[in-house]
Amino acid sequence: MTTSLAPFTSDDYARRLMRTVHEAHEAELDGVLVAPGPDLVWLTGYQPPPTERLTLLLLRPDQEPTLVAPTLERPDAEAAPGADIFEVVGWADGADPYDVVAQLLRPDGRFAISDGAWALHLLGLQRALPRSRYRGLGESLPMLRAVKDPAELARLTAAGAAADATYEDIVGARFAGRREADVAADLADLLRAHGHEQVDFTIVGSGPNGANPHHEAGERVIEPGDVVVLDFGGLMHGYGSDTTRTVSVGEPGAEVRRVHDVVRHAQQAAFEAVRPGVTCQEIDRVARRVITEAGYGDRFIHRVGHGIGVTTHEPPYLVEGEHQKLRPGMCFSIEPGIYLPGRFGVRIEDIVTVEHDGGRRLNTTERDLRVVE
Amino acid sequence: MTTSLAPFTSDDYARRLMRTVHEAHEAELDGVLVAPGPDLVWLTGYQPPPTERLTLLLLRPDQEPTLVAPTLERPDAEAAPGADIFEVVGWADGADPYDVVAQLLRPDGRFAISDGAWALHLLGLQRALPRSRYRGLGESLPMLRAVKDPAELARLTAAGAAADATYEDIVGARFAGRREADVAADLADLLRAHGHEQVDFTIVGSGPNGANPHHEAGERVIEPGDVVVLDFGGLMHGYGSDTTRTVSVGEPGAEVRRVHDVVRHAQQAAFEAVRPGVTCQEIDRVARRVITEAGYGDRFIHRVGHGIGVTTHEPPYLVEGEHQKLRPGMCFSIEPGIYLPGRFGVRIEDIVTVEHDGGRRLNTTERDLRVVE
Repeated sequence: MTTSLAPFTSDDYARRLMRTVHEAHEAELDGVLVAPGPDLVWLTGYQPPPTERLTLLLLRPDQEPTLVAPTLERPDAEAAPGADIFEVVGWADGADPYDVVAQLLRPDGRFAISDGAWALHLLGLQRALPRSRYRGLGESLPMLRAVKDPAELARLTAAGAAADATYEDIVGARFAGRREADVAADLADLLRAHGHEQVDFTIVGSGPNGANPHHEAGERVIEPGDVVVLDFGGLMHGYGSDTTRTVSVGEPGAEVRRVHDVVRHAQQAAFEAVRPGVTCQEIDRVARRVITEAGYGDRFIHRVGHGIGVTTHEPPYLVEGEHQKLRPGMCFSIEPGIYLPGRFGVRIEDIVTVEHDGGRRLNTTERDLRVVE
Repeated sequence: MTTSLAPFTSDDYARRLMRTVHEAHEAELDGVLVAPGPDLVWLTGYQPPPTERLTLLLLRPDQEPTLVAPTLERPDAEAAPGADIFEVVGWADGADPYDVVAQLLRPDGRFAISDGAWALHLLGLQRALPRSRYRGLGESLPMLRAVKDPAELARLTAAGAAADATYEDIVGARFAGRREADVAADLADLLRAHGHEQVDFTIVGSGPNGANPHHEAGERVIEPGDVVVLDFGGLMHGYGSDTTRTVSVGEPGAEVRRVHDVVRHAQQAAFEAVRPGVTCQEIDRVARRVITEAGYGDRFIHRVGHGIGVTTHEPPYLVEGEHQKLRPGMCFSIEPGIYLPGRFGVRIEDIVTVEHDGGRRLNTTERDLRVVE
C-alpha cells in the first residue's frame, strides 16, 4: 500500500462533508449536529479544548455548514485543518447559545446529534425547540465513520503494525519478578517509540487479575507459571490501535493450553466469518458458539468486538442484537476471551477490516500461546 | 489551616451523598442521575475508563443508591473509594441498559442528570421513559459541587500555592529568544515539580498571540518588548489550580502600563465585591465597569470567571445573566482581561473563595506588572 500518511487536506474534509450530507439526506434528517469529539475531528480536524461552552457544527440540507462556537474560540476554529468547510457563528459569554442554534434549525426538525454531546446541551436545544426530535448520530448514520476511506485504512494499518512491533519487543522482556505496572510502562514506552502519539490503555492482567477483562495494571508481581493478558493501544496519526495477546511465564499447564486453544479457535472462526453482508451479531455468535461448545460459554462475559477509527471504541459494535451488516471498509476488533475467576484469563484480539471477499487482519503477530521468561 | 490532605474516606463520600439527597429533596426531584466525570468522582471517587457503555449512579428518594454499570466494570466499581455508598446493578453486553435504568426510576419522574452525560444516554432514557423529564444537574442543584467543604478547600488552597510557586519560578527564567512552547513546557514541568498530578493548560501568549485569550502556546519566538500572558493550571490531590499573570519582557511602554493598571484595578474591584449574597453577575459587572470606564469595554471579550473544584471549569459562572448568589465555600476565578488584536493582551487571574465577610484569594503572587528577561 502506497497511500501517504500526510495530513488530511481540505479535499479530504470536503469529501467527508459530502458523504455526511448525502447520508443525512437518505435518512431524511433535517440536520446533523456535531459536537466536539471524534465526529468533529473526523469532519473538520477541529479539537477545541474541553469546555462547557456550547460548540456545535450544524449541517443542514441546502445550507452552508455553520459552526456555532464561543467567540473566544473563533480564531482557533478558523485555523482548523478543515475550516474551509464551515462558517463560524460566534456567541459571546452572557448570550444564550441555544437561541443562536435554534434560529438556524427547523423548529420541528428531526436531527442526529453526536453520541457524546453533553446532555446539558441537548436539553438546552430541546427547550429552545420543543417540537424538534433527536437521535444519536451513531444510530442515525451508522455507516458514516464506521466505513473507512483508503487514507484512514492506511493509518489504521500503520497503527496496527506499530502495536505488533510493540508486542514483538515486549515478549523479549522479562516478566517474572516484575510488577504488572512495570510491564505496562514498558508497553507505553514501546508504543510511543513505534510512533504512537497517544497511549490509551496498557492492560497487564497477570494470574487472577487476567480474569477481570478491564483490570488495568497494578502492583502485583508477576510469578513463574502466570498467564498474562496483554491488551494495549492508542492513537497514531490520529487513528487507533488495539491488540491483545496472552502469554505464559514459563511452560503452561494442560488447562491453560486448552483454554488458549479454545479462544484461538473462536477468534479464527469469527475472523473467517467476516465478509460483506454478514450482521455484526453473527460475528459475535460464531465466536461464542466455539467457546460454548467447549464448555466455557458463561466465562465469555463481553461482546466480541468494537469498531475503531479516530477513537479506540466506536460503532460498529459486534454484539448480540446488532443487526447492522458488515460493509467493505469497516474496521473492528475481534477479541473473544475466557475468564476463570480467581485463576486466570485468556483473550486474543486483532483489528480486522472488511474487504470485498472477506476480512483482513491489521494485527498479524503469532496467535499461538507464547512462552516468556 | 491544618486540614489534612489524606485521601477522602467513606465518611466524606457519605456526607456528600447526604447533601445531594437533601438538596434533591428540596428541589422536589424524583432522582439524580450521575454520569462518569466530575459528579461521579465527587460523589464516589469512581472514575471508569472512558466508555460508551452506560454507567449511571441513581440517587432516588428513600432508596439505596444504585450504580448501573457494565458487568465488566463491576470489580473496579466495587473497589472505588466511595463504593460503600452504592450497590452495583450490572448489565451485560447485548442487554438494553436503558431498560435496566427505567425499571429503577419513576416513569413520570423529574430528574437531574449530569451536565456532561452523553446525549446518546439521555435519548435512551427519554425513549425508555417517555413521560420522564430532565434538567442539567448544575442547574438543578447549583450549590452541590459549587460550595466546597473544608477538605476540598484545603486541596484548592494547596493547588493554588503550587501554581503560585510555579509562577515565582518561571519569572526567574529567560523569556527573550525562546519559543512560547518552550516556556509552556517549563510551566508544565514546574507544576508537576510543585505537586500537580495533571497539567491541564499552559497558555503562553506573547505579543499579538496574547490578544487571543485561548491561544495556547506556539512556535513564536518571544522578543524583547513583548507582553506575555501566562495562564496555567491543572489538578493536585484531585483539585484544580488556575492562575494568570501578565509579564513584560524588558521595560514596558506607557500604554502597556496603563492597560495593565486598568486590568489590575478591575480585578481588585471585583475581588472586593465578593461576599455572600452578591450575585455572580454582579462580580462580572464590577470588573467590566472599571474596564469600560477606562475605554476598553469592547476589548474585555469574556466573562470574568468560572468555578473550580474537581475540574478547572465548572459552575458557578460569573457572567451576565447568572443570578445565583455567592455563598461561603464557593471557589471561582476572577480573571478580567483586555485584548488588543494584533498587538497584545493582558489578563490577571486569581482563584478566590467566598468567606463569611468577603473573599479570600488562593493565589497571592504579586499582581503588579512584572518585568522579566
